[in-house]
Amino acid sequence: MPAQHSIKRRIQFSETDLAGVVHFSNYFRMMEEVEHAFFRSLGLSVVMSHEALEIGWPRVSASCEYFGPLRFEDEVELVMRVTKVGEKSFNYEVDFLWEGRRVALGKMTSVCCEMLDKGMRSIRIPDGVRRKLDGEAQGDA
Amino acid sequence: MPAQHSIKRRIQFSETDLAGVVHFSNYFRMMEEVEHAFFRSLGLSVVMSHEALEIGWPRVSASCEYFGPLRFEDEVELVMRVTKVGEKSFNYEVDFLWEGRRVALGKMTSVCCEMLDKGMRSIRIPDGVRRKLDGEAQGDA
Amino acid sequence: MPAQHSIKRRIQFSETDLAGVVHFSNYFRMMEEVEHAFFRSLGLSVVMSHEALEIGWPRVSASCEYFGPLRFEDEVELVMRVTKVGEKSFNYEVDFLWEGRRVALGKMTSVCCEMLDKGMRSIRIPDGVRRKLDGEAQGDA
Amino acid sequence: MPAQHSIKRRIQFSETDLAGVVHFSNYFRMMEEVEHAFFRSLGLSVVMSHEALEIGWPRVSASCEYFGPLRFEDEVELVMRVTKVGEKSFNYEVDFLWEGRRVALGKMTSVCCEMLDKGMRSIRIPDGVRRKLDGEAQGDA
Repeated sequence: MPAQHSIKRRIQFSETDLAGVVHFSNYFRMMEEVEHAFFRSLGLSVVMSHEALEIGWPRVSASCEYFGPLRFEDEVELVMRVTKVGEKSFNYEVDFLWEGRRVALGKMTSVCCEMLDKGMRSIRIPDGVRRKLDGEAQGDA
Repeated sequence: MPAQHSIKRRIQFSETDLAGVVHFSNYFRMMEEVEHAFFRSLGLSVVMSHEALEIGWPRVSASCEYFGPLRFEDEVELVMRVTKVGEKSFNYEVDFLWEGRRVALGKMTSVCCEMLDKGMRSIRIPDGVRRKLDGEAQGDA
Repeated sequence: MPAQHSIKRRIQFSETDLAGVVHFSNYFRMMEEVEHAFFRSLGLSVVMSHEALEIGWPRVSASCEYFGPLRFEDEVELVMRVTKVGEKSFNYEVDFLWEGRRVALGKMTSVCCEMLDKGMRSIRIPDGVRRKLDGEAQGDA
Repeated sequence: MPAQHSIKRRIQFSETDLAGVVHFSNYFRMMEEVEHAFFRSLGLSVVMSHEALEIGWPRVSASCEYFGPLRFEDEVELVMRVTKVGEKSFNYEVDFLWEGRRVALGKMTSVCCEMLDKGMRSIRIPDGVRRKLDGEAQGDA
């Protein structure tokens, strides 16, 4: 069963633009917001040490489809689903729900990296982290 | 010949995050920045009146692939190419070039809309605008 | 008794900069966040109609003093206090509390305006709004 | 003669909010933009090594007064003046000019710090940097 996590949050004034709706770039920040809440729900952080490694999760690709606007003070529900856990990377999707309707769909691919003094290099996702991303830590299965 | 436009701009401190690189969401703002510079180069604006219509260009989809980081004070070149001009929408791509190397590739689809008091509706791209997006206004062709 | 309101919120990754702390400009967005939550707690919105007027609250001045940093995933408490309700404007302060310590102090002055098609003009704060900002709607006083 | 520096830049769509004007928090990012351009004009960077020290300039206080709005595609001139160079900190002001009129005035105090693995500590501004901030490197003096 794939891991899933959701949060509700309110649209802030500073997230809107002159068209009166949320600026399209801010959907990517919301995707990250639910992703990081998901990591915390697993007892993890995207900025973490693991067996003496400093681990980070840079993005390989990010996309969003927009079906309708979000406006100031709207309460939006962000539903994140892990769709694939690969050797070194993982994929997830985020449904943006407003009043029960999907107003946007985001997709992200992030790669597990060891952070070095100069740059970083991709590494195999540590087993303990992989199991959590796979959803094995959720429910009693 | 498809329309093309490029700008150079410097990475600002506020665009970086704790990983020491440009936050992935800010690439979408840079895509918009070169898009709007392109519109201005055609004598247009994304916020414009055309024959008594208020026209806007909401996004249908946006995506970005990341090949390498951008850092504070880097000078990045943004090269935008119109890839398709449809009945009501148009597509473009943006190469993010740093020291001659492509560090990211963005893609966008925007739809031409009449802005109404409540919401908006998609319309056929006005001919004068279409010709400019098609690149007919550029070069001697 | 002056009106007061507080919220707790977590620092997001996109709010940090390459120094590893929250970018100083984002404190102003947090000030606005608790201000707008305060308005909602009074049954108001900063974007509202009142007796056929469209009312807005542009800023006259904003300032912030910084005593210590905020970092990714910190939980910060924002405590807003109305410090003055004038004829046409009001002032408030925001304490930024982290682990019980004040890490920043923000101050804001906003003016009540009627929003017109072209621009806006300052107006007397409507009585019903003034009473709420004055805190008369809070407690049993 | 105090050091001074100015840049011109265009207001971007993503800097506006639903009121149709630049969000007040973005003035602080513009203040930083001209400050960093000023440092570069002196051959410095706000992120620099100096005699084996890693130096940073965290903000102690920031404020802005707003006299009129800025809108999408406006070209704004940012004029920065160093107003005081102290033992460990320096102050500057930024005039926001639009069509020759001052639409905002920003003020900032930053302190010179040695960046340590954990946190930082304020230090005396290095002499070579101080002379440049004092404006001695400018003009024919």
